[in-house]
Amino acid sequence: MKCDKFVVNAAGKRVPTLVNGMEMVPYLGLKKHRPVGKKASPFIPTCIDYPDDGDKVVSSLAEALKKCGLKDGMTIGTHHHLRDGDLVSNTIFDIAHDMGIKDLVWAPTASFPCNESIIKYLGDGTVNRIEGSMNGPLGRFTSYGGMKGCAVLRSHGGRVQAIQDGELKIDIAVIAAPTADSFGNATGSEGVSACGILGYSLADMFYAEKVIVVTDNLIPFPCMPFQIQGNYVDYVVVVDKIGIPEKIVSGTTQVTKSPDRLLLAEWTAQFCAEAGLLKDGIGIQTGAGGTSLSVGLHFHEQLKNNKWKARFGFGGSTQYLVNMLEDGVIDYILDGQAFDLEAVRSVRENRNHIDLSVLQAYNYHSKGNYTSLTDIVILGATELDTNFNGNVVTHSDGLLLHGIGGWQNCLHARNVILPIPLFRDRIPVIVDNLTTLCGPGELIDIVVTERGIAINPLRTDLIYRMKGSSLPIVTMQELKEEVDSICGKPDKPPISTKDEDVVAIVKWVDGTVLDCIYKVL
Amino acid sequence: MKCDKFVVNAAGKRVPTLVNGMEMVPYLGLKKHRPVGKKASPFIPTCIDYPDDGDKVVSSLAEALKKCGLKDGMTIGTHHHLRDGDLVSNTIFDIAHDMGIKDLVWAPTASFPCNESIIKYLGDGTVNRIEGSMNGPLGRFTSYGGMKGCAVLRSHGGRVQAIQDGELKIDIAVIAAPTADSFGNATGSEGVSACGILGYSLADMFYAEKVIVVTDNLIPFPCMPFQIQGNYVDYVVVVDKIGIPEKIVSGTTQVTKSPDRLLLAEWTAQFCAEAGLLKDGIGIQTGAGGTSLSVGLHFHEQLKNNKWKARFGFGGSTQYLVNMLEDGVIDYILDGQAFDLEAVRSVRENRNHIDLSVLQAYNYHSKGNYTSLTDIVILGATELDTNFNGNVVTHSDGLLLHGIGGWQNCLHARNVILPIPLFRDRIPVIVDNLTTLCGPGELIDIVVTERGIAINPLRTDLIYRMKGSSLPIVTMQELKEEVDSICGKPDKPPISTKDEDVVAIVKWVDGTVLDCIYKVL
Repeated sequence: MKCDKFVVNAAGKRVPTLVNGMEMVPYLGLKKHRPVGKKASPFIPTCIDYPDDGDKVVSSLAEALKKCGLKDGMTIGTHHHLRDGDLVSNTIFDIAHDMGIKDLVWAPTASFPCNESIIKYLGDGTVNRIEGSMNGPLGRFTSYGGMKGCAVLRSHGGRVQAIQDGELKIDIAVIAAPTADSFGNATGSEGVSACGILGYSLADMFYAEKVIVVTDNLIPFPCMPFQIQGNYVDYVVVVDKIGIPEKIVSGTTQVTKSPDRLLLAEWTAQFCAEAGLLKDGIGIQTGAGGTSLSVGLHFHEQLKNNKWKARFGFGGSTQYLVNMLEDGVIDYILDGQAFDLEAVRSVRENRNHIDLSVLQAYNYHSKGNYTSLTDIVILGATELDTNFNGNVVTHSDGLLLHGIGGWQNCLHARNVILPIPLFRDRIPVIVDNLTTLCGPGELIDIVVTERGIAINPLRTDLIYRMKGSSLPIVTMQELKEEVDSICGKPDKPPISTKDEDVVAIVKWVDGTVLDCIYKVL
Repeated sequence: MKCDKFVVNAAGKRVPTLVNGMEMVPYLGLKKHRPVGKKASPFIPTCIDYPDDGDKVVSSLAEALKKCGLKDGMTIGTHHHLRDGDLVSNTIFDIAHDMGIKDLVWAPTASFPCNESIIKYLGDGTVNRIEGSMNGPLGRFTSYGGMKGCAVLRSHGGRVQAIQDGELKIDIAVIAAPTADSFGNATGSEGVSACGILGYSLADMFYAEKVIVVTDNLIPFPCMPFQIQGNYVDYVVVVDKIGIPEKIVSGTTQVTKSPDRLLLAEWTAQFCAEAGLLKDGIGIQTGAGGTSLSVGLHFHEQLKNNKWKARFGFGGSTQYLVNMLEDGVIDYILDGQAFDLEAVRSVRENRNHIDLSVLQAYNYHSKGNYTSLTDIVILGATELDTNFNGNVVTHSDGLLLHGIGGWQNCLHARNVILPIPLFRDRIPVIVDNLTTLCGPGELIDIVVTERGIAINPLRTDLIYRMKGSSLPIVTMQELKEEVDSICGKPDKPPISTKDEDVVAIVKWVDGTVLDCIYKVL
């Protein structure tokens, strides 16, 4: 059995404490789980084993993987900074398959539809499981029970926590790099495949036993300023193309045109203004979705009109966030990924557009991180319950279709706001029981829907401040009743509830098991 | 006994393999010692233990040290980026003394005359020993046997190797930071005490159990671009002054005016030109001494006249190196420390002036480092023997007066050139037996003196290329005979040779014991 030793955790969820043969700690509640022991540490290397001239280029990725000792059961780390334009990740498993390797664990920072071909390797035993997000096809495959092992879903911060803590040991990290030198120094901000930032790869760089850099733009040493440090790199591989540029970054990111979504954005911004959340010197993370971008435009305008300056705007960055920086309404962009060409330009040119590692921004097993210093964060959800608990990975039909991304991490911000529609395709977003619990309701402060705005009862300060507002402040119960009256009670979806049908677990930011995802029948 | 289990190492030196109660490996020869085991790793922290608002400021350094659990026998890491203007390091030991703490190990990246007050703490048992360089007064005190423990001398690269490998465990690192935020992000490039770069502190930041940032310029979060990452910092202390600005960086660094030194520089540059060492695309490190700066000026002129561009110039940086960058004769400055105000300005303003960690530049237990990629390096020495072996820490009278600095690390460059006078104050620089062996002669290629230039016989390529040169190419034996004829045979200095009188050991870049330093009687 993939999962065993089930217990009920502090969120009331029945979860396994033995997953893929490894012991797990059940979720104990917020700020309850205290890690023990020391950080992971790779073997000590020596310059003796690396060329004096610094040239680590080998002829192919296959050769590099062989030199790294690729073998059955190893864990391979990759990163999603090339997004749906990635031409590197799948190749690793093509090579492994050709070598007859079995039971690999793939630990990507995220997967995209372009990674659909991994399904065949999950089917033939080349890959045992994915520890990482599964958007679209891979998630669907997993939901129907296609994966041999149990998938492990982690937030971006949770992934680096697990790597740092030695819970997820990366044997070989393959870092796709838009520009690199032969020593392995690399950056995402230059080259035809420029994606801006490589911050998802830093944890792998530090903690993986072997590191391969794959580039389509090799330049003379030193590739500077570097994002990846060649001192941690074993081999460099030069290929024709690491990605498809137009799928790596969009030319432009776009604000929503939907009247409903525009209303959500307007109300969100108005709420922030009335509640006094938007003010001089704050830190904000609005995100890159269509509604979020619209919220960002409102913030831009309000900051400017009030002659306020936000101290920082958190990425993923877009042309709109860059506009805010260049228009002087924010001091710094702190950034883990660049979504469009303007953002890539900005991170290359503007010293106040800072490329960050997930280790700084989101790691919960750190001496503090940036999430709890952020004043306003705008997030989404696939489902919420009336206790403000949220789901972002599955839909109400049980299908696993999204990654956690930075969602769990961002819940630690001071004011977490979810502008979401009450229903999608006549499926309610506010439900009695979440299909999957991804984040505890204690951390979600405000839910903005087209039929009213609910404030978490724990936030008595906000409830007090919004007394007398012209905005439609309601309760989650009221929203729930409204959506039920519109959509009716949905049919019970065909999802297993058996222990042996757990296909994935959801980890919390501290490495504990928050919930599990069952097979769709 | 501080040192025990003596053996003869591969350099023919009798060295202890038990030092301060710790097992040591004797020097085995170049590229012979292979490290075993895993890198050091501190305990896993959690955000639970750090304030949600990120404010780690405590009222004083004493409070921070107490909160870090300062106790007998701990090792304290500090860094010399404030040079002789440092007002922080001594304070740590004043506090420890007031607390009645005993037997601390002080592991500075370097010490300066301003640290003379540590002598009283070495005398009263507050400090057991120094593992780090001892310039001037502290070295003299050590030479006369004043230190309770045995001093351990390491190069800059050797210090980070030892920290990374767990051989030198830093319990508490105190990082003096010219600018910081309350989360602990810090930079050296801003503030009244700006020193440019904090690259000596990075190893401590990663590997120390507890990290304290001390600043006199606290700014709102985020302090960006950061050199020190607050995620690794436990406490922040704000003081009036961390240093004396005019002693931290000089207003300007100065080229030598000595006719003898100018001749050494001219010959060095001419040698590089004639031997074809200076060419387009190379990497150079000229250093910041008076002679070195003059060599740099010659290089600048030659590069410019030939329309060549060096790919990188290694710091420590000075106005002259900055001039080369701004004049377009080098692409990048790779830098560990900034020596003057122009260098500080450059690292703050110029994206091609890169602040580096010693981990990148010099660490021998890394997957390669930058030293072996450097084409020309200019170094000094206090003594050389006729086999090109070099000493940089003691004088011929036996007194320990200098740190190793990056000297051992830089020996790994492709062409190591030492422009040095044949004698100083009528004491020969070329000797029969080195007072202390700091670097194997195999790695020193060219010695330029005012009476001739000696090429290491191992460099048959250079000997061949310099045939017919107008420069006075001689042998080391010839130089030795010449200096002896001028200075006569010096008196045998009053230095002990007894095992129990070892006051310090010299480590090689791989952590092995290269030589030891005996008490001066």
